[in-house]
Amino acid sequence: MAITMYDLAGAKAERRFSPFCWRARMALAHKGLDVATVPWRFTEKDNLPQPNVGRVPVIVDGDRVVHDSTAIADYLEARYPDRPSLYGGALGRGLARFVQNWTETVLQTGLIRLVVLDIWKHVAPQDRDYFRSSREERMRTTLEDFVKDREARLPAFRASLDPLRRTVERQAFVSGEAPAYADYVVFGAFQWARAISDFELLAADDPVRTWRGRMLDLHGGLARRAPAYGE
Amino acid sequence: MAITMYDLAGAKAERRFSPFCWRARMALAHKGLDVATVPWRFTEKDNLPQPNVGRVPVIVDGDRVVHDSTAIADYLEARYPDRPSLYGGALGRGLARFVQNWTETVLQTGLIRLVVLDIWKHVAPQDRDYFRSSREERMRTTLEDFVKDREARLPAFRASLDPLRRTVERQAFVSGEAPAYADYVVFGAFQWARAISDFELLAADDPVRTWRGRMLDLHGGLARRAPAYGE
Repeated sequence: MAITMYDLAGAKAERRFSPFCWRARMALAHKGLDVATVPWRFTEKDNLPQPNVGRVPVIVDGDRVVHDSTAIADYLEARYPDRPSLYGGALGRGLARFVQNWTETVLQTGLIRLVVLDIWKHVAPQDRDYFRSSREERMRTTLEDFVKDREARLPAFRASLDPLRRTVERQAFVSGEAPAYADYVVFGAFQWARAISDFELLAADDPVRTWRGRMLDLHGGLARRAPAYGE
Repeated sequence: MAITMYDLAGAKAERRFSPFCWRARMALAHKGLDVATVPWRFTEKDNLPQPNVGRVPVIVDGDRVVHDSTAIADYLEARYPDRPSLYGGALGRGLARFVQNWTETVLQTGLIRLVVLDIWKHVAPQDRDYFRSSREERMRTTLEDFVKDREARLPAFRASLDPLRRTVERQAFVSGEAPAYADYVVFGAFQWARAISDFELLAADDPVRTWRGRMLDLHGGLARRAPAYGE
């Protein structure tokens, strides 16, 4: 039986734009598992399976309900040990956490200041007020003000990608010669951005862009086929 | 027969302050290999074994001469596969490169702007002119000017450690529950700084400091016993 995954969706149900859901989606594909996704909107808290923590991703695998992208990756690795590994062992799992923490403190923090207004433009109509008010409260400013100098901040954002850039200049993937969970974590952030924004994050000759292209090609072009902007 | 390692030394021969040499020294200890270090100064280019690339670390293991900390780690992993692993496999090796690239583009770049003048104060007398002129040419300013606002830049430096901080808040080492090569890469940068500078890089309650203490304790307190400042 296919695994069910609740996946954050926009006004267009096929548009999936959660970085955390993309991590889980790619991890499921890495394991070669069949999945049926259920589009979910921010204001549909009651539509999630029990126990309900009000957030996605959530997967349902038989009688198991697993929340949180990190817990989902750990669950899949333990439950399906004979399928391609997400971590390559305890040491790789530890190091994937460093990549994840870089993604969350540097990459996603930088991206939100570039694309948060574009997210609002793509969320479902019933989510627009919730999204604006929750984010404006957190950011202590309007969505418009938060991104208004984004062109000026683009060079600093691109510079902040140096650890990633140098890595994928020298090897095909963050995880080495083949992609693994750490790649999906970093890619989730880029896929989130391109799902809802046409703002050009990466220069045409950026090695990060070449790596992103490799990620878009994985698993039968799973992420490339999803509604998004640009390459 | 013990492995010989050429190791950058200061005015005091026991003071070892190259981040790259510390990576190799800790990797050798991780493998449980006997090592005899040879103190080496910047201006002693001719005192290195052949083939001579004019830089350290260099190790001599029987009839093998290996240059460059990354090549040394790869060599040790391949040559001594039955001893504790530095990478935990190909995936862990790939991810260790990301940590290394973060260390080199963020951490070491930040540190040099805090401690470069302190390095000059600790190099051997015969190295002082070489060190000053080579670094001032690269930085296009004097050593004094390069560090003069370091107090003002300290908060940004500490903030740049967020990926590391969050990681070692949640697990004992960068590599997970046990230390491995990626830890030595990051630690090499901190050990370099503390070997030559009493500038307080880390707040007393910083989880990064707690992790650094764990690293200082490893391998019989190898790094803690070396001449250095502070904890």
